[in-house]
Amino acid sequence: MIKYYNVNGKIVPTEEAVINVKDLGFLRGYSVFDFFRIYKGKPVFIEDHMDRLEYSSGKLGLPLPYSRTEIIEKVIALAKANELEFGGIKIILTGGYSLNGFLPTTPNFVMVASTLPAYPESYYTKGVKLMAYEYTRETPYTKTTNYLKPISLQQEIEEAEAFDVLYHDGEFISESARSNFFIVDEAGTIITPDRDALKGITRKHVLAIAQKHFNVEIRPVSIKEARAAKEAFMTSSTKKIMPIRQVDFWRINKGIIGETTKQMMKLFQQHIDDYVAKAI
Amino acid sequence: MIKYYNVNGKIVPTEEAVINVKDLGFLRGYSVFDFFRIYKGKPVFIEDHMDRLEYSSGKLGLPLPYSRTEIIEKVIALAKANELEFGGIKIILTGGYSLNGFLPTTPNFVMVASTLPAYPESYYTKGVKLMAYEYTRETPYTKTTNYLKPISLQQEIEEAEAFDVLYHDGEFISESARSNFFIVDEAGTIITPDRDALKGITRKHVLAIAQKHFNVEIRPVSIKEARAAKEAFMTSSTKKIMPIRQVDFWRINKGIIGETTKQMMKLFQQHIDDYVAKAI
Repeated sequence: MIKYYNVNGKIVPTEEAVINVKDLGFLRGYSVFDFFRIYKGKPVFIEDHMDRLEYSSGKLGLPLPYSRTEIIEKVIALAKANELEFGGIKIILTGGYSLNGFLPTTPNFVMVASTLPAYPESYYTKGVKLMAYEYTRETPYTKTTNYLKPISLQQEIEEAEAFDVLYHDGEFISESARSNFFIVDEAGTIITPDRDALKGITRKHVLAIAQKHFNVEIRPVSIKEARAAKEAFMTSSTKKIMPIRQVDFWRINKGIIGETTKQMMKLFQQHIDDYVAKAI
Repeated sequence: MIKYYNVNGKIVPTEEAVINVKDLGFLRGYSVFDFFRIYKGKPVFIEDHMDRLEYSSGKLGLPLPYSRTEIIEKVIALAKANELEFGGIKIILTGGYSLNGFLPTTPNFVMVASTLPAYPESYYTKGVKLMAYEYTRETPYTKTTNYLKPISLQQEIEEAEAFDVLYHDGEFISESARSNFFIVDEAGTIITPDRDALKGITRKHVLAIAQKHFNVEIRPVSIKEARAAKEAFMTSSTKKIMPIRQVDFWRINKGIIGETTKQMMKLFQQHIDDYVAKAI
């Protein structure tokens, strides 16, 4: 049960976690965020998330109000306040209380804690279905709060009995709405798109592990190539590695999760466990 | 001096106008708005703005919590509370307090009053400069709060000594960041783009007036054609008709405001005055 958030450095009860409506994130979507996964009470890959948050804040010209050390301390403090063993802490950095409703001022810094979404076990044992959709995010490398498109698509996704969307530009696949996309080809090579996809932290670690055991390629993945793929999976901080069994009407490996995906799931779980065991 | 806003139907002092950080507009940019111009204490073209707000809310599947009559009453009440003679009232409708941080719930309805930006008189007598920029809004017909791109471009706009951007797709011009775009050709025809541009309320009224006095065309406007235009102007609720004297390094009519633009400015001002005189 989440009881506390953090607003501009202060831990407050969730019901008191408010911002004024003059906030530029609220009024104009001028806002970036990052999501710190908490595993066994510890933030996972926190330096990577800090790197990305710093990148995003730099891209929008919004200075972080605290040092990296201070932010990490605040993440840990908020996890502790909520007795959060497994969950996540989202940090949102906005354009602040704008005087004219358009130009950024001193940023607002908000931390929202959450328990993890409970994905059914079958998502991992049987894989999920995605719905292909032609769309490229405006700023794929900067983690902005603009999720209007995938939220608008929820009904269509449900009607397609899909778990999420798979974005493409008509020729090449980029990513899912909140996850990176990987395929495994006939030769066992693990391939992930290089363009128009968020530089996911899980993606980064999955690639590092994969490179020790498999051939890895980071390059454009065409829809045609993805359709012929032997295996496919998606990665994100909350999902870790989640197998994909189907996209629209095209089934992957006849709907059976492949051995490479299974092995990667094990290796990645081991990698997280090792990380957390070593973390302070 | 603005003293009051409205949050979910209640008029509150601006400093108490807050929303919880779980709001989906704040967290995920899932939010639409409209801006009601107040002129001599009265909302201008309010039925048109209500039409568009209803369109936007429908597009995002966010039901308006009040009837049209109730919303108009609330706009007038907030203008009165602030003794607002000349200004605007923005209505923001968000995805509400989301349980999982992604799916919309009961919308939040926020009203923010503001005085008008004071544009220097020279903007109207000498025209403004725009900076051409290749960009198409994700949802040009729905008035969402996503203004990340033009806010990010502010520094570049300032360095170019421009007033705002002029969006194009490499071949055709669509609109400015918060205004519609018009040209007048050698024959005196008034032309405005038909695609990827917000259906501006000022644009609609300017077109209606223009049709009584000039030839009017609503169709794609190429960059090439715009470069050869005799006159150019932009329209918005706050700017009304504002002449454009230059885009990047290309000057329009040698930097002199044309007669058609001048005449349209007069006709439109008369149109507003007539509207307000008749309004209750």
